[in-house]
Parts: sequence; C-alpha cells; structure tokens
Amino acid sequence: MSTNKKFVDIAQQLKPEINKTTVFPKRLIEVVGDKDVFQGWRINNLEEIENLELKSFGKNESFVIDFGDHQVGYINLSIKAVGSPPDAPLRLKLIFGEMPCEIAESFDNYDGRLSRSWLQDELVNIDVLPCEIQLPRRYSFRYLKIIVIDTSKKYKVAFSNIYITSVTSADVSKIEQLEDTIQEDLRVMDNISIKTLRDCMQSVFEDGPKRDRRLWIGDLRLQALANYHTFKNYNLVKRCLYLFGGMTLKSGHIGACVFIEPQPLVDDIYLYDYSLFFVASLYDYYTATNDMDTLDKLWPVALKQLELALERLNEKGIVKDDPSWWCFIDWHNELNKQASAQAVLIYCLKRGLYLAKELKQNKVIDFIKYKIDFVSKAAIEHLWISEKGFFISGENAQISWASQIWMVLAEVFSKNENANLLERLFIDPPAIKMNTPYMYHHFVDALFLCGMKEKALEQMRGYWGEMVKDGADCFWESYNPEDKFFSPYGSNVINSYCHAWSCTPAYFIRKFLR
Amino acid sequence: MSTNKKFVDIAQQLKPEINKTTVFPKRLIEVVGDKDVFQGWRINNLEEIENLELKSFGKNESFVIDFGDHQVGYINLSIKAVGSPPDAPLRLKLIFGEMPCEIAESFDNYDGRLSRSWLQDELVNIDVLPCEIQLPRRYSFRYLKIIVIDTSKKYKVAFSNIYITSVTSADVSKIEQLEDTIQEDLRVMDNISIKTLRDCMQSVFEDGPKRDRRLWIGDLRLQALANYHTFKNYNLVKRCLYLFGGMTLKSGHIGACVFIEPQPLVDDIYLYDYSLFFVASLYDYYTATNDMDTLDKLWPVALKQLELALERLNEKGIVKDDPSWWCFIDWHNELNKQASAQAVLIYCLKRGLYLAKELKQNKVIDFIKYKIDFVSKAAIEHLWISEKGFFISGENAQISWASQIWMVLAEVFSKNENANLLERLFIDPPAIKMNTPYMYHHFVDALFLCGMKEKALEQMRGYWGEMVKDGADCFWESYNPEDKFFSPYGSNVINSYCHAWSCTPAYFIRKFLR
Repeated sequence: MSTNKKFVDIAQQLKPEINKTTVFPKRLIEVVGDKDVFQGWRINNLEEIENLELKSFGKNESFVIDFGDHQVGYINLSIKAVGSPPDAPLRLKLIFGEMPCEIAESFDNYDGRLSRSWLQDELVNIDVLPCEIQLPRRYSFRYLKIIVIDTSKKYKVAFSNIYITSVTSADVSKIEQLEDTIQEDLRVMDNISIKTLRDCMQSVFEDGPKRDRRLWIGDLRLQALANYHTFKNYNLVKRCLYLFGGMTLKSGHIGACVFIEPQPLVDDIYLYDYSLFFVASLYDYYTATNDMDTLDKLWPVALKQLELALERLNEKGIVKDDPSWWCFIDWHNELNKQASAQAVLIYCLKRGLYLAKELKQNKVIDFIKYKIDFVSKAAIEHLWISEKGFFISGENAQISWASQIWMVLAEVFSKNENANLLERLFIDPPAIKMNTPYMYHHFVDALFLCGMKEKALEQMRGYWGEMVKDGADCFWESYNPEDKFFSPYGSNVINSYCHAWSCTPAYFIRKFLR
Repeated sequence: MSTNKKFVDIAQQLKPEINKTTVFPKRLIEVVGDKDVFQGWRINNLEEIENLELKSFGKNESFVIDFGDHQVGYINLSIKAVGSPPDAPLRLKLIFGEMPCEIAESFDNYDGRLSRSWLQDELVNIDVLPCEIQLPRRYSFRYLKIIVIDTSKKYKVAFSNIYITSVTSADVSKIEQLEDTIQEDLRVMDNISIKTLRDCMQSVFEDGPKRDRRLWIGDLRLQALANYHTFKNYNLVKRCLYLFGGMTLKSGHIGACVFIEPQPLVDDIYLYDYSLFFVASLYDYYTATNDMDTLDKLWPVALKQLELALERLNEKGIVKDDPSWWCFIDWHNELNKQASAQAVLIYCLKRGLYLAKELKQNKVIDFIKYKIDFVSKAAIEHLWISEKGFFISGENAQISWASQIWMVLAEVFSKNENANLLERLFIDPPAIKMNTPYMYHHFVDALFLCGMKEKALEQMRGYWGEMVKDGADCFWESYNPEDKFFSPYGSNVINSYCHAWSCTPAYFIRKFLR
C-alpha cells in the first residue's frame, strides 16, 4: 500500500468518543421451529428475567435471554455456585445471536463460505466461583444462550447481574423527531434504520458490527448519507475519508476496505465501483459540510480515482469487461457488471466535476466535462438498445435491473426518459434481479430522483417493510422477500443482521418524505 | 463449618511466594498409536522447535509441542497473520496434556465419572492480529496441541514466542545432592518424586496441579514427609495445618479437603481416616520442626479428632462398619475399610500420645494410653485370625493387603511379628490388592518400619520404577502395573499424572537409603 502519513494522522486524531449504555436483559425465551415464521424459528416468551437468579443450572442445562432489541457491546455476568463448594471448574458455552436462527441452529454444522470464526460463540472455563466476568470481545446480538457444559455432581450454578455495556460513537440526542404527519410504518422503518446505523457507528462506520466489523467504502457512502440526516457526526465521515485517502493501493486505487486494528491498514481488495465511490463520498461530505479544507486535501486522491477508472475504457469509451476485474454492484453471481460500472463512472465523474468547480480547477473541469460527454455517449451508442428500451451489459448483452438503475442514477438520459426506463422495469421486469438492500437502496434512490415518490415508497414498504414484518429490529445485510433463506454465503447464520448498507430508509424518509 | 478466624489469619499470613521460571518448548512432536507403549500412545519427535515460526497454519491444521517435561504454569504465545490482512477472527483450540493420551484422544468422547471441565482445553477467538496472548488460567502439562479451527481463505497464522511461566512455591536450591553411592534408578526416582512434589507445591500443597488443585489432608501428610527431606518448606506445611485446623466441619471434624479461592473454605467431605491424619500430620510437623507454638495452638483440634474417632467404636472397641460412613484408605470399591480404620485410629492415637507428652498434659496422656491399649487389644481379639495369620475386616471377614499394612503401621504387634505378617502377604497374597501410589506408600513404609529394606526397594522398583519405564516424568495419581488403562474414574484422560501422594520415593530414598 501507499501511505500518506499526514492523512492517517488526521484520521487517528478524529477517533470518536465511544458512548456507553448499560442494557439489561428483558426476558427468558425459547426458540422453537415454526415454518410460518421467518427462517422457520419462532420466539416464545417464557419468564420475567427477574426469575433467572432464582434458578440453578447443572450439566447440559441451558437458557436463552432476550435483551429486547439489537445491541453491540460487552457482556457482563455474575455466577455463583449452588450446592456444595465447587469442586471442579465450570465450563460454559455462550452463543450470541442477532437472530433466532443463530440460537437454534448448531454452529457445529456450519458449512457456509465465510469463516466459521465469525459465528459468535465462546467456551469459557471458570476455576473460581463466585465470579463476575466481562468477556473481552465485543459482540453483536439480541439473544444470548448460555449452556452449562459441566459443573460437577456436587454443585450447580446460578446467574445474575447480566448486562451489556452497549457501545456506539453515535449520539442519539442529535436525532430530530419526525413530524406527526409521517405514517406509522415509516416511523418504524426510520427507527430501525437509525438503530442499524447507530450500532454500526463505532471507531469507524463499520459495515456490520457482527461481520465484517470493517470500514468498507460502499457501506460508508450510504451510512454517511443517512448520518447527515440523523446523527450528523461529520467528523466520523471525515475520519473515514482520511483513512481511505491516506492508504491507497500501490496502484493509487482507493482500496475497498480498511482495517483499523492494531493499526490502520488498507485491505488488498480493489473493486472498480468502490474506488470511484471515494469521489461520490467526498462529494456528499462536502455538500453536507462545506469543509473546503478536507476537500482541498483529499481532492487529488479523488481525481486520481477518476483518472484510473478512465484507464479501463476501451477505444469505444466502454468499461472493459473481462474475467480479471472486480466490480461489486450487488451480491449476484450472474449479474454482468459492465453497464453498471460504466454508469458508476459517469455518476462519479459528474460529482467530480462539481468538486473541481468548487476548487476552481479549470483544466480539470474541462477534462472531466469532456470525459462525461465521451463515456455517456459511448454508453448510449454501445449499451443502449432502443428497441428493447433497456441498457445491455457484457458480451451476452445481459439486461438486468442493476444496469438500468445505475444508468438512471448516472443521469445519462433526461429525468423524463429515466422515469420511463424505470417504469419499464415494472412492466417488463428483467430476469436478473436485485439481491441486497444495497442494490435496493439505489433503486429507491433512482425512483426518488425521477420524482416517482409513490413507487419509491412502494419499494421501501415491499422490501424494508417486509423485513419489519419478518421481525427485523435492525435492517439486514441480505434479504430476498421471495426466498427468506437466501444468503450470499451459503448459510443463514453467517449473515449480518445489522448491516450498514441497509440503513438508508431513514435517509429517504428524512430527505424526501417530510 | 466452624471457623477459627485467628487460625485462618495465621494461615493466610503464611501465603508463600510463588517462584516463576520461563520454560521454552523443546520440539515439535506427533502422538501415534502403538499398542506396545503405555496406554497405546507413542511420541515421535518431528522437528526442532526453531522451525515452528517458519510454518504457517490454516483451517483445520494443527501441531503439537513438547516442553520437555511436566510444567505447571501460564502459557504465552505470539501469533501473526501470513498472507492478506486477517479479514476474519482467528479461532483456535488449545489442548494441554500431561500425557500423550490427552493429546491423542478426543475430549469430545469423554465419558468418565468426574467433570469434563477438568480436561484442559480452551477455545480462543482472536479479533486482532498480530497479538501476544497469555491465557489467564494455570495449566498442568508437558504437551500442547494447537488446532487452527478457522482463519479465512485469505490468511494463515504463524506462532512464535511460545513459553510457559512455570510456577511453584518450592525452592529448588534447597535440595541436597544425593550421594554418588545411590543407584542410578533410585536417583531417577528421587528426581521424579521431587519434580512431582515441586509441581504440586503452590499456594498450598495441592493434590494434583491438573486435578483437583486442592489441599487434601491425605496428600498433605505424604507431601509434608517428602518436603521435610527435600524442599524443607516448613511454613507451607504450617499454613496447611492452620487452614485445616481453622476450618472444621460443624461436628468438629477436620474436613477432608480445603478450597483456597476465592477465600479459604473447608469442603463438606468427611473421611474417618483423613480427619485422624490431622494428628499424624501435626506429629510429623512437630518432630520435623520442634515448633512448640504451633503444636500448642493446634493440639486441641488434634485431640478433638481422636475423641471424635473414638466415638465410632462399638462396645467391643472396634470401629463400627455400616454403609453410612466414609473412610478413604485406597481407591478400591471392594475394599472393606474397618480394619484399616481401626489401625489408623491406633496409629494416630500413638502419635497423639507423643504430642500430649511433649505438652505435658498428664490427664490426656493417661486417657490416650488407656485408649491405645483398649483399641489394640480389641483389634487383636476381634480382627486378628491367628490360624490365617491375617487381620480380617467387616462383616464378611475380608482379608486385604490394606488391612495388614495398616495394622503393621499401627504397630499392634512387635516388629518381628509385623515382619512375619508382611512376609505372609508375599507367600499368600490376599485377593483385595492395592490400587494407588497412596496405598503403595503405606506398604513400602511398613516394610521399612520392619527393617525389610530389600523388599521395600523391590516394591519401589516394581511400582514407581515401572512408572518410570512407562514414561513418567512426574509420578501419577493412579497406576496398576497389571492394567495400564486403570482409572478410578472410568477414563485415562481425567487421571492426574502429577499427583502429590505419589511423590514419596524421595522420602524413602532420603530417609532410609542413604
């Protein structure tokens, strides 16, 4: 990687204060199979939490606690022996779940594609009782299952004083109340969005506090948008921009994500769209803050992303599509990303142009203007099929939702033409659909951009609204209303159920619906 | 329990300093099945330990380290990522083994009678690499197996800086060199005994540093004997005597064992012989130290044990044998303990008499003299079968090794008669044999008492010497040369392989063989 130490230092000086809250459990529950419930697991409330300390648990006995809603933090518990003095260590298993599936399905059978180490469980051996323990790791969870693996024949154990030290760098007092005129279901969505964002706001904007607990630029861009309308923690965005800007890949590209501990380090993943989103994120930050100093400092890095992205164009002005490159757009194995990438390039060139104008860089202004014109015309000439009324992507002329949505966001056509293009998606829906809240965000954003407020609301209700009906108290990384077991990683339990890129309903509601 | 706070305070003021040594691993090994080796497991040396840090380990890969000999302490290790930056936590399993069986046999299949929590393994999840970790628990082990449960597809891990902070309250510099005239096999036995004792000497004399890590009076008595001839840590014995003396059961009995953490607490187990051994232990301590102050303070508690033990006599002067009582003697389900208990009572009365004389308590002297006479005569009249030449025990007139050995130690007969009795054990061996080093100790002790030095040596070589041949680097809790899988708990892996009551060869060698 290539490091600009000054930028990293600025980022590190902006390390946020972490706000801590003590959260107590609400009740004892059980998770039971029920095919009519999301993912097949239903929660039954069993008892008041006050009853817990009256119970004792021996070998192979267990209980499940519900903290009422999603939390990110550190668990504390007190344990005492009941019976004879404890004549053997206590061996416990703790399983932390954002969702009932994590409590109900054994992690031992996990066969997903991501590391099993993301599944949140611990084995703890305790030599001396009574004791109060605070586990050193941070967990992301609503449910906690504690299994007594073994005590001895002479004693059982009782639990008390269980609480979470919940952490976030978000300041809840900054949230403006929504007007009474906002409909109830939207208020609920707004609330859950804010909770999602709050739980992802830590030392940086994390993608998900359970997984990957990292700063990804794709997530950052959406989080920052929601943040400007909610917590208004501008410094946290600034910190993240300096982290990305301060540590680029050797090629000069902005990396897709950044590790924070033990010291900041850019990952070796490069994604075409994610590098470009540095420009869009800087644009969003500048328009929200008018922070000219940051714009001035980070602009060279942003401009570099545009230049590097333009190098991928073929002689026709189209982003080259070959097996060697990576562009994210959506979690979708069949999606061809060429047209979306072309659109992201145009989208970011336009935001770059705005910033160049603010900086009064006339030569750059001319350069970007020329390029916008070139890549936009190329898109229309080579990717737009007027008889179909859709943009195509890749060798096989694939028509997808993503390609159309991104071309709308890139504003290749007029607002009116764009609205017609979006309407056509409903009339003649392409087979290659959207898979993630991240892609749905862009769809809804495109609808609002074209003034299609009712359609946008319909999508929000049909997507995030369905998550709410399915029991979400934070919005999820991945959701397919038609396949409720969908996971991009081959396993429900590894999905992140509090995921930054899913937090934008609050942004839409607060920006477009008040 | 009934607490004498003054005594407990004295004990706590005698808390020993813990000596720490850094112990580095010696080599990488593997454990392979081999039916010709003890318990069926052979160690193969694989590589110098220096090679370890050049290796990297991914999902499901593992290695085994040999520290060269048995250690009690805290493990330290440094871990770094190899490959891309670690994009998922590291999940490790650490398995600590005193013996190869613990490394080779899965703890998941454990079905022994003691708690599984004694088996020394940990699951550790690590969020940030590189890292240096010191696990908070103390382990007792020679071998360490580390299994990488998962990393991610993007990185592996390498290990370095692995060492043990080995702990003991023993001071090795106090050990006198044995004379060159002592035979090599005895020197080896002496060494292993001292190592066993050293590893059991911590905040108190523990029975076993792996299990139960507790102060048992049966173990204490033998440890103290070995200690007087080796480390000479008189204060540690004093501390343990005050702990027992300071916390008796409600009935006034000395408890069988004491917990030290979080604060001293006597266990609720009462054993007839163990309570009486408080008298023997005080006698041994006093004769080793001439500490009249301690004798003076603890004598009332000791005398109480004699009085309480005498209450169990029936009208004939024989210890009552019914299903409700507990007497340890040996780990042996079929052994009837009546005759041994009778002998232990006589043995301790005689030591009590000595102490009463030192204290010049004339009335007590008369009382004990009378009782010694009474119970000894009763033993001969009701338990001695002269036509068989053996003592019997219990309703079914059981003849066991233990009964004869304890009657010899009680010196019910003359030295000559006792020697004949012991000879008869070899000529006409009773079916009810000895199972533990603890019982073997008493056999060897009886042989020395009767001047049968060659026989004693033969027993030491046939028992502890066999352990050495079977690979012991500390002496074991349980060993049957004729059944090498014997465990009093139904599983090899739960046995303690560094066990206090097995440390007395050094006592015999240094007391009787120099």
